[in-house]
Amino acid sequence: MQSELRKRLLDAFTNSGEDFLSGQYLAELIGCSRTAVWKHIEELRKEGFELEAVRRKGYRIVKVPEKITANEVRLGLMTKRLGQNIHYEESVDSTQKIALQLSLDGAPEGTVVIAEEQTRGRGRMARAWFSPKYTGVWMSVILRPNLLPQKAPQLTLVTAVAVVQAIEELTSIKPEIKWPNDILINGKKITGILTELQAESDRINSVIIGIGMNVNQELEAYPEELLTIATSLRIESGNRLNRAELIRLVLAKLEHLYDLYLQEGFQPIKLLWESYAVSIGKMITARMVQGDLYGKALGITGDGVLMLEDEAGKVHFVYSADIELQ
Amino acid sequence: MQSELRKRLLDAFTNSGEDFLSGQYLAELIGCSRTAVWKHIEELRKEGFELEAVRRKGYRIVKVPEKITANEVRLGLMTKRLGQNIHYEESVDSTQKIALQLSLDGAPEGTVVIAEEQTRGRGRMARAWFSPKYTGVWMSVILRPNLLPQKAPQLTLVTAVAVVQAIEELTSIKPEIKWPNDILINGKKITGILTELQAESDRINSVIIGIGMNVNQELEAYPEELLTIATSLRIESGNRLNRAELIRLVLAKLEHLYDLYLQEGFQPIKLLWESYAVSIGKMITARMVQGDLYGKALGITGDGVLMLEDEAGKVHFVYSADIELQ
Repeated sequence: MQSELRKRLLDAFTNSGEDFLSGQYLAELIGCSRTAVWKHIEELRKEGFELEAVRRKGYRIVKVPEKITANEVRLGLMTKRLGQNIHYEESVDSTQKIALQLSLDGAPEGTVVIAEEQTRGRGRMARAWFSPKYTGVWMSVILRPNLLPQKAPQLTLVTAVAVVQAIEELTSIKPEIKWPNDILINGKKITGILTELQAESDRINSVIIGIGMNVNQELEAYPEELLTIATSLRIESGNRLNRAELIRLVLAKLEHLYDLYLQEGFQPIKLLWESYAVSIGKMITARMVQGDLYGKALGITGDGVLMLEDEAGKVHFVYSADIELQ
Repeated sequence: MQSELRKRLLDAFTNSGEDFLSGQYLAELIGCSRTAVWKHIEELRKEGFELEAVRRKGYRIVKVPEKITANEVRLGLMTKRLGQNIHYEESVDSTQKIALQLSLDGAPEGTVVIAEEQTRGRGRMARAWFSPKYTGVWMSVILRPNLLPQKAPQLTLVTAVAVVQAIEELTSIKPEIKWPNDILINGKKITGILTELQAESDRINSVIIGIGMNVNQELEAYPEELLTIATSLRIESGNRLNRAELIRLVLAKLEHLYDLYLQEGFQPIKLLWESYAVSIGKMITARMVQGDLYGKALGITGDGVLMLEDEAGKVHFVYSADIELQ
């Protein structure tokens, strides 16, 4: 919906309070047909507005969508660094892009960008990530670890463990991790993690961790082609979650594991990660730029690299692939 | 000099052609004392303007500084990709910063940013890099190699070889390389290389290679504290160089070696690099965050990491350090 029309529509509903506004009135107000008004109303419903429609009276809003506010996230936040500096936006093209700019401008470690909607959300390999309004957690966290740049990919695995632990604590669901960056429930994506690095040859400038979580979407929110591969915590648990609470919990778990990683190295993270990993010990296909590789996923190395044993017994080190479980 | 004053001063000289302008006239024009005018004239001289001063007549410009133009660089450029897209600026804070923005906006591989002056030029570890106007080569090259991110530091060494070969070809000087990123003549810095990476965990988005070359600076151009550690091609060779020609040559050498590296890997680069390396086989001190290490530089690994044998015979792998020759 064009933002100008949308604003006029929402202003009208706000001013009318509990009174109904007729379709005819709304059509004249925003200068379009009654069919178009009906479409705009449907759009608002998709965004989480609940509207009551009564014959011969018209429409009124009975519930506005739950928004995350920076204050709500801050309230009860159990971290020392992550989330102490929150940058909140209603709509962005990509939280990663905003976070990168903030990082280049010197934003401190722990700065978090949260948006209600991403119009060009991204996953790995510049793939699109569906990020509809008011229903998910679309956020980016700026880290500035004193590590060699080649360690940065391990932070994807640190984050995956944090997200799984947060979901476990808030719901009764036990998610699984698919190497390297997907978190699944019943084989469908619930969370994606994107780790982006800015570095000199021997020094990290910043690592920006993007976390996209499907939280309160209902089945109808998904386009056809995503229905078989994506799901949400609401669909799986049957409950709406408080997104601010989920964000606080993810940040708390992440800070704890990140500090553990900085102090003890990757080994304790590796053990946790493997305990949640769905693919380890199973036959998988690793789809890579240079071709497919079929074999048994043995585990990950001390660097977080996937080890795959092919049918001839040869062990391959997989740095970059899409994994398919057989 | 404030740019507004500077502009009025240069406009006045341009309009007066071969006529002299008196100190009194210039003082009134820009609204300052005659001593201040004299200081401004000195500033212009440092930037490469040649001014004639005649008693009782005043000043006139007899030669404006040589500028690089994008067209001059393009003319005779022997590359397929590097430098085919040139972004030229009179003055920037840092060419790396401009190049990063261009890269985020999708600039193609080979895009080059060239500036006449950097007001906040940077070297490794965010150290300042002195980049005075019209005398050096301050440029950044955007590469987008299809490599794993951990390979990116090798591109510093690829670039070092390219710069050394270009200097050898254009002058009779044989520079030496000090690991990881300095090029020296008689122990003084002639060029610094800064490699910055933007990447996902398993995919490079861009590598931005900054090359800062001291070319036509005279001794007087250097602040006191740099005199013992920096020099220029002009000081060492006694000749002014055409900077556009030098840029073309560096880009041609870099493209050739970069293609060799992409096709054959690091091995051929390693051999070339070691042939120019000043520290190999010598006793050195590696100053690192975690302390100093003293020993013999054995060479570099197949990944470009420095190998240092301490006095007990133990070999250390040095990823990040400042090297001091004994």
